[in-house]
Amino acid sequence: MKARVLITLKTGVLDPQGKAVQKALGTLGFDGVDNVRQGKVIEIDLTETDETAAYAKVSNMCDKLLANTVIENYQIELLPDGT
Amino acid sequence: MKARVLITLKTGVLDPQGKAVQKALGTLGFDGVDNVRQGKVIEIDLTETDETAAYAKVSNMCDKLLANTVIENYQIELLPDGT
Repeated sequence: MKARVLITLKTGVLDPQGKAVQKALGTLGFDGVDNVRQGKVIEIDLTETDETAAYAKVSNMCDKLLANTVIENYQIELLPDGT
Repeated sequence: MKARVLITLKTGVLDPQGKAVQKALGTLGFDGVDNVRQGKVIEIDLTETDETAAYAKVSNMCDKLLANTVIENYQIELLPDGT
């Protein structure tokens, strides 16, 4: 089973990378961009086949390693194999 | 309208960050992890309200700035406002 974890900064936490991208988009002539936030995506291939167990495992990984839960939120999506 | 862009390395391109995460997960005692790939997620708030126009605009942004299309794939998701 494949899991996708989206890690984004919490609302209110300054995001200099996002601001840099937003400014660069403006410089390139893209208007109508209100805000940009940048985060990480981590795709994990698991041997686990049970959805509930896989979700619990990935959630545990996020708390222990993948995300800094003081300033970051994470969102877990389980994807069927072959995607 | 909000757009989420997932930028991941193409298959076959070496991903040292992903390998580092995979090794760290192993060290922490998480077994059953076959592979880890790390990428970027960029969330963009657009004033554009038309889906087709927003998609075309974000796609253009990816080609010109957000993704290095030589080694990276991008995937665009349009999200309803308020998410």
